[in-house]
Amino acid sequence: MKPDGGSLIGFGSSGLGGATFKAFDPARNAHLEPSFQSAAPEDVERAVQLAREAAPAWAKLPGTTRSSFLSAIAAKLEAKSADLVARAMLETGLPEARLKGEIVRTAGQLRLYGEAAARGDWLDARIETARPDRQPLPKPDHRSMLRAIGPVVVFGSSNFPFAYSVAGGDVASAFAAGCPVIVKAHPAHPGTGELVGRLILHAVRECGLPEGTFSLLFDAGFEVGQALVRHPAVKAVGFTGSVRGGRALADLAAARPEPIPVYAEMGSVNPVLILPGALAERAAGMVEGLYASALVGVGQFCTNPGLIVLQRSPAAEQFVKDLAARLAAAPEGVMLTPGIRHNFVSHTAARAHQPGVRVIAKAKATSSCGAAPVWFETGAKEFIGNHALSEEIFGPSSLVIWCDDRAEMLAVARELEGSLTATVHAGAAEAKEQGPLVDILAERAGRLILNGYPTGLEVSHAIVHGGPYPSTSDGGRSTAVGTRALNRWARLICYQSFAGDMLPPELQDANPLKLKRLVNGEWRTDPV
Amino acid sequence: MKPDGGSLIGFGSSGLGGATFKAFDPARNAHLEPSFQSAAPEDVERAVQLAREAAPAWAKLPGTTRSSFLSAIAAKLEAKSADLVARAMLETGLPEARLKGEIVRTAGQLRLYGEAAARGDWLDARIETARPDRQPLPKPDHRSMLRAIGPVVVFGSSNFPFAYSVAGGDVASAFAAGCPVIVKAHPAHPGTGELVGRLILHAVRECGLPEGTFSLLFDAGFEVGQALVRHPAVKAVGFTGSVRGGRALADLAAARPEPIPVYAEMGSVNPVLILPGALAERAAGMVEGLYASALVGVGQFCTNPGLIVLQRSPAAEQFVKDLAARLAAAPEGVMLTPGIRHNFVSHTAARAHQPGVRVIAKAKATSSCGAAPVWFETGAKEFIGNHALSEEIFGPSSLVIWCDDRAEMLAVARELEGSLTATVHAGAAEAKEQGPLVDILAERAGRLILNGYPTGLEVSHAIVHGGPYPSTSDGGRSTAVGTRALNRWARLICYQSFAGDMLPPELQDANPLKLKRLVNGEWRTDPV
Repeated sequence: MKPDGGSLIGFGSSGLGGATFKAFDPARNAHLEPSFQSAAPEDVERAVQLAREAAPAWAKLPGTTRSSFLSAIAAKLEAKSADLVARAMLETGLPEARLKGEIVRTAGQLRLYGEAAARGDWLDARIETARPDRQPLPKPDHRSMLRAIGPVVVFGSSNFPFAYSVAGGDVASAFAAGCPVIVKAHPAHPGTGELVGRLILHAVRECGLPEGTFSLLFDAGFEVGQALVRHPAVKAVGFTGSVRGGRALADLAAARPEPIPVYAEMGSVNPVLILPGALAERAAGMVEGLYASALVGVGQFCTNPGLIVLQRSPAAEQFVKDLAARLAAAPEGVMLTPGIRHNFVSHTAARAHQPGVRVIAKAKATSSCGAAPVWFETGAKEFIGNHALSEEIFGPSSLVIWCDDRAEMLAVARELEGSLTATVHAGAAEAKEQGPLVDILAERAGRLILNGYPTGLEVSHAIVHGGPYPSTSDGGRSTAVGTRALNRWARLICYQSFAGDMLPPELQDANPLKLKRLVNGEWRTDPV
Repeated sequence: MKPDGGSLIGFGSSGLGGATFKAFDPARNAHLEPSFQSAAPEDVERAVQLAREAAPAWAKLPGTTRSSFLSAIAAKLEAKSADLVARAMLETGLPEARLKGEIVRTAGQLRLYGEAAARGDWLDARIETARPDRQPLPKPDHRSMLRAIGPVVVFGSSNFPFAYSVAGGDVASAFAAGCPVIVKAHPAHPGTGELVGRLILHAVRECGLPEGTFSLLFDAGFEVGQALVRHPAVKAVGFTGSVRGGRALADLAAARPEPIPVYAEMGSVNPVLILPGALAERAAGMVEGLYASALVGVGQFCTNPGLIVLQRSPAAEQFVKDLAARLAAAPEGVMLTPGIRHNFVSHTAARAHQPGVRVIAKAKATSSCGAAPVWFETGAKEFIGNHALSEEIFGPSSLVIWCDDRAEMLAVARELEGSLTATVHAGAAEAKEQGPLVDILAERAGRLILNGYPTGLEVSHAIVHGGPYPSTSDGGRSTAVGTRALNRWARLICYQSFAGDMLPPELQDANPLKLKRLVNGEWRTDPV
C-alpha cells in the first residue's frame, strides 16, 4: 500500500489539477513522495453532491448495518496496521509503538460506536400513544427520535493520525449516527490519510453502501476547507486543532445563510492543582506522573497539563525543583511538523519575556524539528488578569503558578478559562474539603480528575471530552469522545398520527429493533 | 394585582430611569397605564451579577426542589388567573377563553418540566467503574451527566403572553435544568409580564431560593436585550419570534469572545400537502379543519399553515374554491400589536404583486388593529426559485401552490425551507405510498403530521417543536416544547476517580436519587 496523491471522491479520484504539496518527514528533515494534489472547486462540488445524494439512504440504514460497516473499517485498519504505521512514522515522527497502539484504539472506537448505533439507545426514541377520548381535546399519537443530520465535514487533527483523523472519532461517530462524511485530509500526514481513506472505500464497497458515503479531499491551503464549510448541502462540521483554526470555521459556519453546527475541539490548558496533603503523601510519585503526562507525545496532546497550581511551601518548592531537574534532563522529541515546532519555539520565547515569568527548566533540543521541555513559573498575582498566560502552548511547556495561600489558589481557579480537563491532587484527609474548589472547576472544565493525570483518555459510554470555550466551540455541550459523540450528528424528528410501516422501524408498535423507548412516560423495550 | 412599571431585579426593583413606554390596547386603539421604564445599563449589570452568584447553588439544587418551585409558580398562576387574564386581554386583544386556557397549559408545562427535573432521566447519568487490573492499562472510574449551563436569558414571544413568555416554556425548562433566568419582557405585554414576574418572585422567596434566581427587565428598544446577550456571565439564550430578531441575537452570540448557544424558535411556513385521495374522501372536513387551523389566534401561531400544496384537478379546484369562500367571509380579528398588523398589511400587499401570484380570498378588516384572511395562489413553477414566496407572513395569510402532477409536488417539497411542521393529507389507499414524500419532508421539518393540522401543540415527552433553519437557529437539534427542552440548558461534566460525597448525589454509588443510570453499559436504578 502506497499513497498516490489524489483526492478520493466517491468511488473515483480527481485529475483536475490544483496546487500540489508533499508530506514532510520531521525526523529526517526531508519531503516525502508522492506529491498530493489539492482538490479543485469541481472536486469539492462533486464530493458534496455525492454525499447529499447518499444522505437519505444513510439516514435510514439500520444501526446494525452501520455497525457492520464500522467493524469492516476496523478490521481493515488492523490488517494493514504495518503499512499504515510505516507511513505514519515517516509523516509524523511518532514512534512505532505509539502508532500501533493508536490503531488498536481507533479500531476499538469504530467498533464501540458501531455497537452504540446497533443498540440505538442514543436515538432517544419516545412514543406517546393517542387518547382520542381525552377532554377537552383528543391527544394525538406522537413518536420522535434523533435522525441523522446529513452530510458531515471532518477536519482531522495533526497529533492523532489515526484516532482523530480519517477514520477517527468524528468520522466514526458521524457514520454511526447515519451521516455521509467528507474528510479534509490534514496536510501533515496526507499519505496516511489516503491509505486509511482507501480502506474506508473498500469497506463502503464491501458493505454495498452508496457512492458518496465517504470522500477525502486534499488541500495545500485553506480554500477546500472553507468551500466545504460554506457549501449549502453540508450540515455539520467536526474539527480537532487550534483555537484559531476552529474559531475561524465556527465563524464561517455561523455566518452562512443557514448556520450549521461546528464541533471544534480546540485549545485547552488542563490545569493541575496540587494541594499540600498530596505533596506530603506522594511528592515523588507526582514528579514521575506529571513528567510522564506532560511529555507524552512530545507534549502534543490536547489534554497536556499546561498549568500547575501550587501553594508556596518548602515541600512545594522541593517538588517543583525535583520536577524541573527531571524536565531539564529530558531527551528531546521530534515534533509533528516544522510549523508546530516553529510555534513552540516562538511561543515559549514570548512567554519567557512576560512580566513576572521565569524559566524553571529548559532542556536541550538540537535537531531540526526537535523540542524538549521549556517550563515556566509565575505568581498568582502575575497570572490573574494576564490573558496571555492562559493561552495553550502546544508542546512540552507548562507554567507553574505559585499561590501564597489557599485563598489565592481559589482566585486562580476562578480565573481559569474553559478546559477539557481540570485535575486536583489532594491528600487523603484534605480531599473531602475540596467541595468549593471542585465546584469552581466544574464550571470551567468538562472532565474533573482526582489524583490522576489528564492525558490518557478512555473511550467509553461515560467519558466526556469537551469543555467550556475555548476548549470547544460549543461550550462543552457535547463530547468528541465516547458514545455520546453520536448525538452531535443528529436532529430531532417527530411523527404525528403516523402508523405501521409509514413510521421508521425505530418507532413502530412492534419495536422490531428492540430499542429502549420512552412509551407514555415509561422506558420499555417491548412492543407498544 | 396591578403592574407598576419597574423592572424586577433580584428581590429589588430599579429606580434608575431610562426611556419609558406604555403597553397598547390593540382592540381599543389606546395606550394603557402605567408607564414602563427601560432598564438602565446598571440594572442589566446587577441582574446578571445576581444570576451569576445564584448559578452555582442553582446547579446543585435537587431536582425535587426545582420541581417544588415550578409547582409553586404554577399554583400562583392558577390562583391569579383572573387578574392575569384581565391584563393580558387588554394588552393582546386575545379572547378570555384562549388566555384562560393558555394559563392552564402554562401551569401544566411548569409541572411537567418540574417532574422531569425530579425524575432526572434527562441528566443522562452514566458510570463506568474502575478496573485497576485491566491490561495494558488500568481503567479509571468515570461518572458523567448533564449539568446546568449557568445564567440564561429568555426573550418572550408576542403571541403567547403566558405559555412562551415570563413563566413560559423557555423559563420553565431553564429552571428545571438548574439555571437562573433573566427575562427580557416583551414590550407588547409588559404589564402581564410584570404580574407573572412578581408571582415568580413570590415563589422564589417561598421556596427559600437565592436572590438572582429570576429577574425581569423592560426595554422600549433593543439595547437591554443586546447587552444581556453580550454579557460574559450569560451562558445561553432562548428566544421566540421573528427570523430577523432571532438571527440578530444568534449572530451577536456567535460573535462574542466566548460564543454561547441561542435557541431561537423563529419563522415557519408549515406546509400542508394535500393528495387526491384525501380530497376524494373528506374535502368538506378539510375545508373546516384548515380554516380553523389557519385562523386560530388570527393566524398568529408559529405553526400556522402557510403553504397549501395541491395537484390540480376539478376536486382540488372545488376544495380551494370552498375554502376561499369560507375565508372571504371570515370575521376580522384583532392582531397583537399595531406593528404586527402593519407588517401583515405590507407583506400581503407585496405578495399580491409577486409575479404569478393571485389573491383567492380577501376578507374585510376595518378596525385599526384588525386583520382578516388574505390568501393567495400560485403555480409550482412560480414558487420554485422565488425565495420571497417561502417567507412566512405572520397572520391570517397562506399561499396555495398548484402542481400539475405528483412529480411537480415532489419538486415543490424539495424546494421547501426548514419548518417546524410539515403535514400530509392522504386517502386511505394512497397513504402507504407516501414514503418518498415523507422522506423529503423529514429533511425539512421537525414534526411530520399525517391527516391533521399543525396548530395545537401537545406538551409531552415525545413532542418536538423545532426544525431546520430558519424555523430554529440551531437547525432542529433541540425542541422548545416538551421535556427534551431541558437539555438545551446544560453541558456535560465528567468526574474521574472521585468517590463518596465528593461526587454529586446523581453519581454516587448509593444512587440516593434513584435515577436511571447507565452503569458499565447497563441501564440501572439500583446502587452500584
